[in-house]
Amino acid sequence: MSTHPRICARYFIETAFPPEQAAETMAGEQSTGTFLRVPGETQALRERFAAQVELIAEGEPVAAPSLPGAGTPKNWDGVRRTAEVTLSWPLENIGPSLPNLLSTVAGNLSELKAFSGLKLLDLELPAEFLSRYRGPQFGVSGTRALSGVYERPLIGTIIKPSIGMDPQATAAQVRVLAEAGIDFIKDDELQTDGAHCSFMARVSAVMHVLREFAERTGKNVMYAPNLTGEIDEMLRRHDHVVAEGGLCVMVSMNSIGLPAMKVLRAHSQVPIHGHRNGWGMLGRSPALGMSFVAFSKLWRLAGIDHTHVNGLRNKFCESDESVIASARSCLTPMFPEPLSGCEVMPVFSSGQSARQAPDTYKALGCTDLIYACGGGIMGHPGGPAAGVCSLQQAWQAAVKGIPLAEFASRHQELAQALELFGA
Amino acid sequence: MSTHPRICARYFIETAFPPEQAAETMAGEQSTGTFLRVPGETQALRERFAAQVELIAEGEPVAAPSLPGAGTPKNWDGVRRTAEVTLSWPLENIGPSLPNLLSTVAGNLSELKAFSGLKLLDLELPAEFLSRYRGPQFGVSGTRALSGVYERPLIGTIIKPSIGMDPQATAAQVRVLAEAGIDFIKDDELQTDGAHCSFMARVSAVMHVLREFAERTGKNVMYAPNLTGEIDEMLRRHDHVVAEGGLCVMVSMNSIGLPAMKVLRAHSQVPIHGHRNGWGMLGRSPALGMSFVAFSKLWRLAGIDHTHVNGLRNKFCESDESVIASARSCLTPMFPEPLSGCEVMPVFSSGQSARQAPDTYKALGCTDLIYACGGGIMGHPGGPAAGVCSLQQAWQAAVKGIPLAEFASRHQELAQALELFGA
Repeated sequence: MSTHPRICARYFIETAFPPEQAAETMAGEQSTGTFLRVPGETQALRERFAAQVELIAEGEPVAAPSLPGAGTPKNWDGVRRTAEVTLSWPLENIGPSLPNLLSTVAGNLSELKAFSGLKLLDLELPAEFLSRYRGPQFGVSGTRALSGVYERPLIGTIIKPSIGMDPQATAAQVRVLAEAGIDFIKDDELQTDGAHCSFMARVSAVMHVLREFAERTGKNVMYAPNLTGEIDEMLRRHDHVVAEGGLCVMVSMNSIGLPAMKVLRAHSQVPIHGHRNGWGMLGRSPALGMSFVAFSKLWRLAGIDHTHVNGLRNKFCESDESVIASARSCLTPMFPEPLSGCEVMPVFSSGQSARQAPDTYKALGCTDLIYACGGGIMGHPGGPAAGVCSLQQAWQAAVKGIPLAEFASRHQELAQALELFGA
Repeated sequence: MSTHPRICARYFIETAFPPEQAAETMAGEQSTGTFLRVPGETQALRERFAAQVELIAEGEPVAAPSLPGAGTPKNWDGVRRTAEVTLSWPLENIGPSLPNLLSTVAGNLSELKAFSGLKLLDLELPAEFLSRYRGPQFGVSGTRALSGVYERPLIGTIIKPSIGMDPQATAAQVRVLAEAGIDFIKDDELQTDGAHCSFMARVSAVMHVLREFAERTGKNVMYAPNLTGEIDEMLRRHDHVVAEGGLCVMVSMNSIGLPAMKVLRAHSQVPIHGHRNGWGMLGRSPALGMSFVAFSKLWRLAGIDHTHVNGLRNKFCESDESVIASARSCLTPMFPEPLSGCEVMPVFSSGQSARQAPDTYKALGCTDLIYACGGGIMGHPGGPAAGVCSLQQAWQAAVKGIPLAEFASRHQELAQALELFGA
């Protein structure tokens, strides 16, 4: 560890000002400066506490401002420039505190008039954060150990309809999925503790099915019930999951905030499945908010074990490139050995089927993921068991480097799946 | 209260699809539906749990998509329409839970391919939320009672430089400001608990000054130290503030999340100053995220007493129209009498001086605000006391409807301020 550790953040910026000047504005606003130089901002204070511009890499200019409200310099040359800018801050300014990190790297910055675009792309944090936050408790290896699934992705699914079923109907769907050979089942993020389907009753009903299934077959299906709520509720719900023999809990990250996640992580005895709903508000604009790579690093440190990355050729608006960047980042260490890398299991979902397995494997280079499918399981002409089987076959083909169509000639379930989802 | 209370949310949308169809997609995604109709989504389940489209008001079409990744229908007529859409959900789906409300009204919606723009504009919540969340504990009247300031805004300021001063230097600046007649002082959001200026030592040093000042003058200056951090830290810091005789705490809302705010509110004995840094990520794009009106309603319910709205002709990129809409909303009841309206005190800041007082008063129609200035106080040629005095004079003129220049002819401090800040 350095004796003067620094926090680093990389941004995309779009500005009518010279990038050097714009970057200095960012650094000033988020550390010792204000709009006007004030008397107390001495040279000594600046040297110790000011944010520094580490790197500016200019990109292609843009024709029109991405966001409204931006200013232009007095003698503007008419060029609206883009750049990637890396800033650094002394850790001493805030200490290893995730909430205060957020205020520092993503506080008032995006409202600065100098910018018609400003997005946080990545974060690099000193190891001191690891002494404060524990990171994932289970991660990839812990999730594999609990579910007993090795050398292939966990095949998962989401209970549908998202909301409206009572505990018994939910448990009945879980029974069908378990018998079909599924590894992982999660609630939809809209389902938590409605009057018609209380969390406690749902978990009891589902775990009754899964315990019976495990006793009979030896297979532990991982069910991630959505415990999102107030802190006391979440801890009570977690304890109920553990008491019922559950192996996972799910929580909506944006809905609860980082400090609540820290409390949940300290308390949890099972993996935490971090749902990213709402991230689109931060991530969809190329000129505002933050990338999932930066976002997920905060939550990895705070203690999630899995998180959503969408999927290739998904039904949302995210590009394949972005999906893969997110997934790879989840599996890339945040800190060097022997420290924890805070790797978490990426969850692929949204319109996923046997079709995307080869490309997903090729892009990710491993099988450390949860592969969540809906239609490909419940809609398979041979029934849900054939659906799960077809997905396992697709991943076998992917790992062996055998084209799906060729592998399908010897595997009927995969052949049927390929027919269902088009050539 | 209705026997079947519903949650309402109003959105701006931009879509290549017929607005009716796009609105149904939103309603489906965020309640019983998924991309494909699934067997369990029965008519009875839909009738009870589905979100409903309440209103669609079409606006002007746009030439180009605001966000990337949007799809177009097969037989697209080439028109990209905009509309305001109001959806409603049965409260029964989630119960009165703010974290789950967020997943429902602002979860995966903004990633839907049908939209090249989607922003949450406003929320209307059933009164059941008030039985669960307490709203502001002090609000406008409590803040006035504690600070002893009536019939004019609280004149406030932010300690600068934002970060880097030690507790003694901070206390020395507070002493100058108190002697100048200031009503309200806050930390910058970058300042929390750095190694050079620990929260505990800073609060002790500042409160030593302010207690001595109150004993001597009878005036209680409200200091809002930034306690943003983990939950246990925040409660400890709050207790230290109270033990030192402090009258306020400040917290960065986005940095801590709603469940942590609920815990802080339940514990707090003083007003909570809710700093909105980071809101720009959600609010700056007209086509993504959420308005401050919607955002602040969540936090008002959770229990803040003050919140930032920027200021007229501010140095950030926000328009005056948006500033005033935010400020008015803070003072507009969320629930009908005799229920709490959850009104909170808007905080005007960023480049504010005597100049903006008349327009601010005209737009807001009252003096229930904190008016935070920096340069206008510390930079006043007559010194900080003349600076504070000039701001009070500007507000007297505003309330009396006397033009600033005319009032300044009889008030030297105001005259000097107007000279300093230009005609």
